[in-house]
Amino acid sequence: MSFNAFGKNFRFTTWGESHGEAIGCVIDGCPPLIPLKEKDIQKYLDMRKPGKNRFVTQRREDDKVSILSGVFEGKTTGTPIMLLIWNKDQKSNDYSDIKNKFRPGHADLTYFLKYGIRDYRGGGRSSARETASRVAAGAVARKVIGHILKKDILIQGAVTQVGKLTINQRNFNWNDVKKNSFFCPDKKIVKVWEEYLDQTRKKGSSLGAKLLVNAKNVPAGLGEPVYGKLDADLAGAMMSINAVKGVEIGAGNEAVELSGDENSDEIRANKNKKIIFSSNNSGGILGGISSGQELNLSITIKPTSSILKAKKTINNKFQNTSISTKGRHDPCVGLRAVPIAEAMMACVLADHILRNRAQCG
Amino acid sequence: MSFNAFGKNFRFTTWGESHGEAIGCVIDGCPPLIPLKEKDIQKYLDMRKPGKNRFVTQRREDDKVSILSGVFEGKTTGTPIMLLIWNKDQKSNDYSDIKNKFRPGHADLTYFLKYGIRDYRGGGRSSARETASRVAAGAVARKVIGHILKKDILIQGAVTQVGKLTINQRNFNWNDVKKNSFFCPDKKIVKVWEEYLDQTRKKGSSLGAKLLVNAKNVPAGLGEPVYGKLDADLAGAMMSINAVKGVEIGAGNEAVELSGDENSDEIRANKNKKIIFSSNNSGGILGGISSGQELNLSITIKPTSSILKAKKTINNKFQNTSISTKGRHDPCVGLRAVPIAEAMMACVLADHILRNRAQCG
Amino acid sequence: MSFNAFGKNFRFTTWGESHGEAIGCVIDGCPPLIPLKEKDIQKYLDMRKPGKNRFVTQRREDDKVSILSGVFEGKTTGTPIMLLIWNKDQKSNDYSDIKNKFRPGHADLTYFLKYGIRDYRGGGRSSARETASRVAAGAVARKVIGHILKKDILIQGAVTQVGKLTINQRNFNWNDVKKNSFFCPDKKIVKVWEEYLDQTRKKGSSLGAKLLVNAKNVPAGLGEPVYGKLDADLAGAMMSINAVKGVEIGAGNEAVELSGDENSDEIRANKNKKIIFSSNNSGGILGGISSGQELNLSITIKPTSSILKAKKTINNKFQNTSISTKGRHDPCVGLRAVPIAEAMMACVLADHILRNRAQCG
Amino acid sequence: MSFNAFGKNFRFTTWGESHGEAIGCVIDGCPPLIPLKEKDIQKYLDMRKPGKNRFVTQRREDDKVSILSGVFEGKTTGTPIMLLIWNKDQKSNDYSDIKNKFRPGHADLTYFLKYGIRDYRGGGRSSARETASRVAAGAVARKVIGHILKKDILIQGAVTQVGKLTINQRNFNWNDVKKNSFFCPDKKIVKVWEEYLDQTRKKGSSLGAKLLVNAKNVPAGLGEPVYGKLDADLAGAMMSINAVKGVEIGAGNEAVELSGDENSDEIRANKNKKIIFSSNNSGGILGGISSGQELNLSITIKPTSSILKAKKTINNKFQNTSISTKGRHDPCVGLRAVPIAEAMMACVLADHILRNRAQCG
Repeated sequence: MSFNAFGKNFRFTTWGESHGEAIGCVIDGCPPLIPLKEKDIQKYLDMRKPGKNRFVTQRREDDKVSILSGVFEGKTTGTPIMLLIWNKDQKSNDYSDIKNKFRPGHADLTYFLKYGIRDYRGGGRSSARETASRVAAGAVARKVIGHILKKDILIQGAVTQVGKLTINQRNFNWNDVKKNSFFCPDKKIVKVWEEYLDQTRKKGSSLGAKLLVNAKNVPAGLGEPVYGKLDADLAGAMMSINAVKGVEIGAGNEAVELSGDENSDEIRANKNKKIIFSSNNSGGILGGISSGQELNLSITIKPTSSILKAKKTINNKFQNTSISTKGRHDPCVGLRAVPIAEAMMACVLADHILRNRAQCG
Repeated sequence: MSFNAFGKNFRFTTWGESHGEAIGCVIDGCPPLIPLKEKDIQKYLDMRKPGKNRFVTQRREDDKVSILSGVFEGKTTGTPIMLLIWNKDQKSNDYSDIKNKFRPGHADLTYFLKYGIRDYRGGGRSSARETASRVAAGAVARKVIGHILKKDILIQGAVTQVGKLTINQRNFNWNDVKKNSFFCPDKKIVKVWEEYLDQTRKKGSSLGAKLLVNAKNVPAGLGEPVYGKLDADLAGAMMSINAVKGVEIGAGNEAVELSGDENSDEIRANKNKKIIFSSNNSGGILGGISSGQELNLSITIKPTSSILKAKKTINNKFQNTSISTKGRHDPCVGLRAVPIAEAMMACVLADHILRNRAQCG
Repeated sequence: MSFNAFGKNFRFTTWGESHGEAIGCVIDGCPPLIPLKEKDIQKYLDMRKPGKNRFVTQRREDDKVSILSGVFEGKTTGTPIMLLIWNKDQKSNDYSDIKNKFRPGHADLTYFLKYGIRDYRGGGRSSARETASRVAAGAVARKVIGHILKKDILIQGAVTQVGKLTINQRNFNWNDVKKNSFFCPDKKIVKVWEEYLDQTRKKGSSLGAKLLVNAKNVPAGLGEPVYGKLDADLAGAMMSINAVKGVEIGAGNEAVELSGDENSDEIRANKNKKIIFSSNNSGGILGGISSGQELNLSITIKPTSSILKAKKTINNKFQNTSISTKGRHDPCVGLRAVPIAEAMMACVLADHILRNRAQCG
Repeated sequence: MSFNAFGKNFRFTTWGESHGEAIGCVIDGCPPLIPLKEKDIQKYLDMRKPGKNRFVTQRREDDKVSILSGVFEGKTTGTPIMLLIWNKDQKSNDYSDIKNKFRPGHADLTYFLKYGIRDYRGGGRSSARETASRVAAGAVARKVIGHILKKDILIQGAVTQVGKLTINQRNFNWNDVKKNSFFCPDKKIVKVWEEYLDQTRKKGSSLGAKLLVNAKNVPAGLGEPVYGKLDADLAGAMMSINAVKGVEIGAGNEAVELSGDENSDEIRANKNKKIIFSSNNSGGILGGISSGQELNLSITIKPTSSILKAKKTINNKFQNTSISTKGRHDPCVGLRAVPIAEAMMACVLADHILRNRAQCG
């Protein structure tokens, strides 16, 4: 992918800065005749929206999306779909102290080194605010998938680890995920995480997180070996999300400790010639092509870089100084990544469904 | 990326099957006037070549590369560079028993499900033999990098874990890597790994591996936020290599257990305004743009899927059966991945150097 | 190019329908640090704007452009530039009679056949209203060119023929072009064309036009043989403009009647090794690469398809009927094409300047 | 398109120089299960082959194509198809006199200005020899079209003008085209052209040509408005062929002299709701989308630049000199362009059939 565009046959380009007038995306290549309303998109934006609980940024944004093109009388027309979200709570003054300093762990320095200029207001283009556009595109991608496959792919994400505290796999329940503000599938650990986050915040620090993203009902045959492999495109998509430092498919890093014997997902067919695997260490992808099993991947997100504790840095004259972030900031940005990772999964799948339809019918 | 092509401004397309007549790649967009000889490429192919020791596949291939176009009087001309390698030791008979069966963990089944046809000879297109073309492209990418930057980026890979046995970081020495056939930076563990692999092979099983890939002298400013981020493109590139199941940048998965305070790479500048970081948890990339630090990433490779021990599978009539791989096979495919991962790193960097030059001069 | 995006390293995507809420484009890959204000874009939009004289559509649009992203403190930042123009004079009622009929010569039928749906209001996406977005992108492209080359490429278009009436080449004067509403370089023919158009309109018919597009100060070396040749990309760009039916480079169609001897642009160098050609039948491009001469191309635009005279057609139930276009319509759409063709020329050149910089420095 | 690659979902990359070891192309994205043999490709290469009569270059080439990958047991597998043609009659000595001179009308100078190096042997990459690879790709494209549509699109080209001598439209007969070595549809003019060419050659000069390319059975709905319009992609494809200076769709340049009334292709439907047009001035494309009518386009090819008559030029030290081309050269390169233009038409259509299938099913 290049610049600010993602996808080949289902392609979207996002634009906008954290504290600019608006953000949004234009989706190109969307099939026609798909029923699409703003509320179809809004519900996913609402999941991602800041300000939902005390652990996520206090910025107040409606995040109301408008469809400016590509939909006529409630249906997609096959022409570009422009989705626009006005920025409201821009509070530029909050960021005046970072105008001339580079926050460690942020893109401030590298944007400056690359472009010789940066929009310092709230991180500008490098802000996680850009991810709202991904979520909007992902909502359309889900509609595309459902329209073409005649049934939905169920895409679900969950936070499985915060800092050093991992869920108990035996408590894993997808139904619990949307009942708590941590997207946590283990309801028993929610309280523990709350305290953990409170303590961390008091220390002026922050925590990382690990997420699982799962997709059910994925047809076999998606993926373009060898450089458009489904897992390669998913890895690129996930790594493009702010703060992600690791991506694993299926057994992922655990595969290194499995023997070939253990790692093998044996194959059976039942009487109806339906294929059944004994396990899913592959994560649903073999040779870069979906196998018909569930997709499973996990991503690791670093702790929030903006912390209260002062850290050494330099200013834009390359003089030594220090910085402490006092504004509204999440103690664990990973908590907000679930709708974003789901959206990227949806976009990759929609794109590959169209790509596969082009080549294989 | 799509299909069999990789890169945007430095773009290559690979072609060829394991047991076809030949394999190769065509490189498009290469800058002109770069001295290039076949031996510049051959030395990297020789590093990847099968049959070098008893732990890597016994297939005998010269892997002699020919430059068929794009080079004139020893220099690149800016036109497409066609690199061709004839297949010699094709031994199609070895694979007759897999003609009608799908090997677990391989792409046999998914290619069949996607395309309705597969070249069953040695895995056809899905064979790791394709990676020779990547190594060839990577050799050219290195020349491009050196030519444009006026100095080389030093790209080095090493195997840091085989199965459950990890190197001792205190013994880590880049100089040792090329002195053993495991690309191992800890010379003390080499013997241990040898025995471990021998035992594993005797059991009819195999082992996974973990690799580190490092790049020194990478200029700041490479990467195109937000969907062509340097880390996103590296993740996609690495995940496109056969058998890779995880990619981590910098601290990677360990970042989840670090506090924001610990994870912070503080920034200093010296008198010459040279930027120095206190640590490199970021892996040399911030906001998808290289920071001028060393690049560090690691990849996890699953254990070889082809094992002697019989595993359940189905045939192409979707009837249950089993399979045992008797032919030449590596007990740990990860051992051969170092030159391949280095090559992909080189290709991503060469492409981004050109992309950055286009936009930022 | 694909869908609604144009360009590779300077890439823009346009969106919006004639009678939707807004139209616009997002420009991706723009170099940073280029001074850019809305007025830089507005002046070109004003040239294209409808309603300027009695021969161009009476639709009243401000065509006021807003820059919603990618510019900070008056300079481009290297991030996507979103340009938005609200539609004001949408008058949907004018078009109610074409809701169920397909206008001959328009895209009504083919959009319906392809997508199964069309936005019938004013032609929807297929309306020439889309070209405002091109003009906006072209204005940015011109800034990119000037910034990188340190001097402007002077891009100028002119109408050289209306219907059967061709200008007198001996009267050709670029200075006259912007002094009349026909972009006509022969001031003596202006009055004649006016009468001709009046008569044609009275007959309920319309006229075609032929345009010349010229670019001065184009550096040698632009173009990517063999499928991104400069002339190939210009031809595709021009043919993508509504109603264009022919594109010629340099001598164009006249070349067929020249002998090889006559057609030859002989080459000389002066004492300063500056290259001088005896003629410019090539139109400034040899082998798909700019030669340093002026670029010259011409395009042929068909007569306006919407005419007062009733024509046979079918409705969307595929029943025979007829249609007559009573609304505001230009008797010669070609008259408005000059700023659009200039813009596409600018976009192709900006893209190729960046592409060439990537490969050749 | 960029560099040496053409197409999006059906994508091919050509490589190779006139006097290198070989030329060829790799086709990526080809659907699987299409029967494909070398002879399917060879028959089109034989049509293009040099040395067929006394008016086409005396170079002796078998142009025997080998399929090196992507086909298994006689069928495409969905993986890249590598087509290779060895160069045999390279005769490098013929070209020694142009080593240091730039031939007027050729790409010698511009390649040198762009790349700082050129393969001077026979024009290197800029030679029309590259078009053999296009013809090979086009042969595969035709198979793709037939496979997907379940019937062939009949693509036919013809030479309609040589120099100043145009065919008599009343004699136009497609059946005559392949009965003469001029691809001429008017058998009565063949003798006249022969004499004309003989005379021109004797004068040391050359002639241009005009071609018609027609496609029958093209389904409605192909084309991606607004930058991947079918006519825009065709224009780019045709203009990328060596020596082409003009492309017209349908009525083309003649449209400028038609009134809107005359130019209108009225629409009727018969009882079976089959759409019938009263005329085809549009050339089968409306709004960038195929209408279901026949496609018609024409291209203008300049006279051969290599002529016996001496012309002024400079050498690579930018000193004035002159050049006369004594070697084997065609008096009218346009005579060989028919199979090439047909191939490009086939490639555009195959690509758009897949692109349309992706988006619209």
